[in-house]
Amino acid sequence: MQSHILKTNEFESLLLHKAVGSWVWDTNGKKYLDCESGMWCVNLGHNHPKTVEAIKDQADKIWHRNKMFLTPATLEAAERLLNFLPNDYDKITFLNSGSEAMEFSISFAKKVTKREKVLSLQDSYLGAYGQSKESSFTSSKQSKLKIRYPICDKTDCDCLEKHKESIDFIFKTNKDEIACFVLEPIMVSGGIFKPCASFIQYICEKTKNVGGLVVIDEVTTGFGRTGKKFGYEIFEITPDVIVLGKALGNGYPVSAVITQSQFETKCSSSELYYAQSHQLDPLGAAIVNSVIDVFAEEKILENIQSKINLLDSFFRSLTHPCIKEVRSFGMIFAIQIKSSSNMTTEEIIYTIKNKLLQEGIIIGYSTQKELIRLLPPLTIKEEEIKILKKKMLKVLSSI
Amino acid sequence: MQSHILKTNEFESLLLHKAVGSWVWDTNGKKYLDCESGMWCVNLGHNHPKTVEAIKDQADKIWHRNKMFLTPATLEAAERLLNFLPNDYDKITFLNSGSEAMEFSISFAKKVTKREKVLSLQDSYLGAYGQSKESSFTSSKQSKLKIRYPICDKTDCDCLEKHKESIDFIFKTNKDEIACFVLEPIMVSGGIFKPCASFIQYICEKTKNVGGLVVIDEVTTGFGRTGKKFGYEIFEITPDVIVLGKALGNGYPVSAVITQSQFETKCSSSELYYAQSHQLDPLGAAIVNSVIDVFAEEKILENIQSKINLLDSFFRSLTHPCIKEVRSFGMIFAIQIKSSSNMTTEEIIYTIKNKLLQEGIIIGYSTQKELIRLLPPLTIKEEEIKILKKKMLKVLSSI
Repeated sequence: MQSHILKTNEFESLLLHKAVGSWVWDTNGKKYLDCESGMWCVNLGHNHPKTVEAIKDQADKIWHRNKMFLTPATLEAAERLLNFLPNDYDKITFLNSGSEAMEFSISFAKKVTKREKVLSLQDSYLGAYGQSKESSFTSSKQSKLKIRYPICDKTDCDCLEKHKESIDFIFKTNKDEIACFVLEPIMVSGGIFKPCASFIQYICEKTKNVGGLVVIDEVTTGFGRTGKKFGYEIFEITPDVIVLGKALGNGYPVSAVITQSQFETKCSSSELYYAQSHQLDPLGAAIVNSVIDVFAEEKILENIQSKINLLDSFFRSLTHPCIKEVRSFGMIFAIQIKSSSNMTTEEIIYTIKNKLLQEGIIIGYSTQKELIRLLPPLTIKEEEIKILKKKMLKVLSSI
Repeated sequence: MQSHILKTNEFESLLLHKAVGSWVWDTNGKKYLDCESGMWCVNLGHNHPKTVEAIKDQADKIWHRNKMFLTPATLEAAERLLNFLPNDYDKITFLNSGSEAMEFSISFAKKVTKREKVLSLQDSYLGAYGQSKESSFTSSKQSKLKIRYPICDKTDCDCLEKHKESIDFIFKTNKDEIACFVLEPIMVSGGIFKPCASFIQYICEKTKNVGGLVVIDEVTTGFGRTGKKFGYEIFEITPDVIVLGKALGNGYPVSAVITQSQFETKCSSSELYYAQSHQLDPLGAAIVNSVIDVFAEEKILENIQSKINLLDSFFRSLTHPCIKEVRSFGMIFAIQIKSSSNMTTEEIIYTIKNKLLQEGIIIGYSTQKELIRLLPPLTIKEEEIKILKKKMLKVLSSI
């Protein structure tokens, strides 16, 4: 019974019991195009045959082991993932969630630098609890070292010029205390915003100059979501720590923290000690290996841009009194809603979401940020995009 | 390559690639009796056929979904787990790790009570990070509301009498600030200690009287590990929040937080809001269902006591100059080590661990707590116990 589930968010009454590719089915046999990729996790589509095969094969071998032992699947995943990255990294650990990996990384940066302060941007979402939440816009007790970043999509802007003084002030007054700058390349939960490259480059350079670490949260933006392999590539920066989650497991709970031995060696073994039940477990590692396989075999990154263009031009072509603005980056789309004479933004958002659900389309939404949101699987097909367009136009015309 | 793995702990050089029941195999085909149940997770043995079947079946259906939707597997797991508990609870959520579930529960208690202080016992281990770590003995900045608890295994003791004054003082000076008392029923990482029942009952009663919640960490002690279904049953107390992990997934990363609607209703929907990628996912729920099945079908709880007795009488019969004391509770065994004329406790611990590994036996150890530790699967067979006894005697006689 649904009433037994602690109400951590609103639940729809329908129940899902099957998923394939871009589609999920409810228990009445009705199917839905999942334009949220679950929780932005199944970049390769639901139940990808390769990941299903991988979990079944590994489930027959070994799921789990004591922390003293590694497994061939884990070492293979480690090596392949390090090779998958555009820059040189030589150290990795696997955990179970993006939040845990961010928590681990912030603690790691503090141990490496022997400092305590964490710098982040105003609209970042970096995790569900602890230090990662404290650095996020969802926190009630936000960390003091937040930079208000410019909302700007010009390539040739004066954002850095305008904010330089306040950035310089933060670094000047905290230079011996900054452990890390924590960056989500695109603010996704924060409303789909991309900070300017020169602005980010400047903060990263400042952080490294004062001896802090640049920690990049690629939990949502990694594995092709932005059109590039990883989100940080947009800024042409070199992170010191990279955090992966969501798409890394394509539906399975596995995350990763990637760094360099030059930082590991700054920590004592007792400082580095961390033991979590499923850290480095082979079941998750086998999924990671299959995800990397699919990216190569199906040329996911090579094929994504045409789909992004199709969706992007469609969303930007929409004109409707309730649409204030469309923002997008790669395969991340937000339609900013405005109130009408007889409906609040919240009413409009719920109406669009509910009507689309009736039409067999799952979208995301944020009443706080006043938007509807779509992060479909990177493997979405052209005919599925056509269905989405048709249903979206139908629903918008009914409002 | 092993060198790519961030050194969060010491790793053995051998690699594991197969596991069945109480056994794991390395890549050279050598097998090892796993007396640590992985990381104390596979209470039903590695790769139990029912859990393997469950993960394969569910992997064909649906792994993951957006937080807006529930699944039949999740609702079934929720209802069956609530029924599996000895007391009445009506609210549950599923997460991915015990640490995350403890973190969630401490935050939940703070939201329910609108208070901030967390009370715990001196030698508890409650989680790997955040608030749960702060309440643990592994924290460098331990919370101030710790109670030093008596190490005592008498049934008729005066521990409560001796500590009553200091407990009363804590409650008197913090009565309007205590959000919760967080209890690990047996201090497992803390060295295998069990606080006295009257002492625990008194603190729980005091906590409830001042309006705080009793949060029980059953991550290690749940699912038969103590010989009872749940560890808290030892004390005849009724927790307000129960946290499950480890054995709940028998090798799969799934955890749970269980409570009552009377507490949920004290939080606003924004306070309750929590969204994690794999919260309530059907893949984990399917494993939970299979674990509950096996507990009933194989009468795990009914069959465990004879094995506990066999192991307990064996460990307690051991006499050796390096053995200081044997402590045990249910299927949790610690052999406290003392130094000899020519070896430190650390050298003795490593020697025993290494020699047993050579003999095909995996045990746990803590150099900090100066002990070796065994938490074998509850499904360990009598012939496997015989092998363990023989190898243990062989190794001890060689030191």
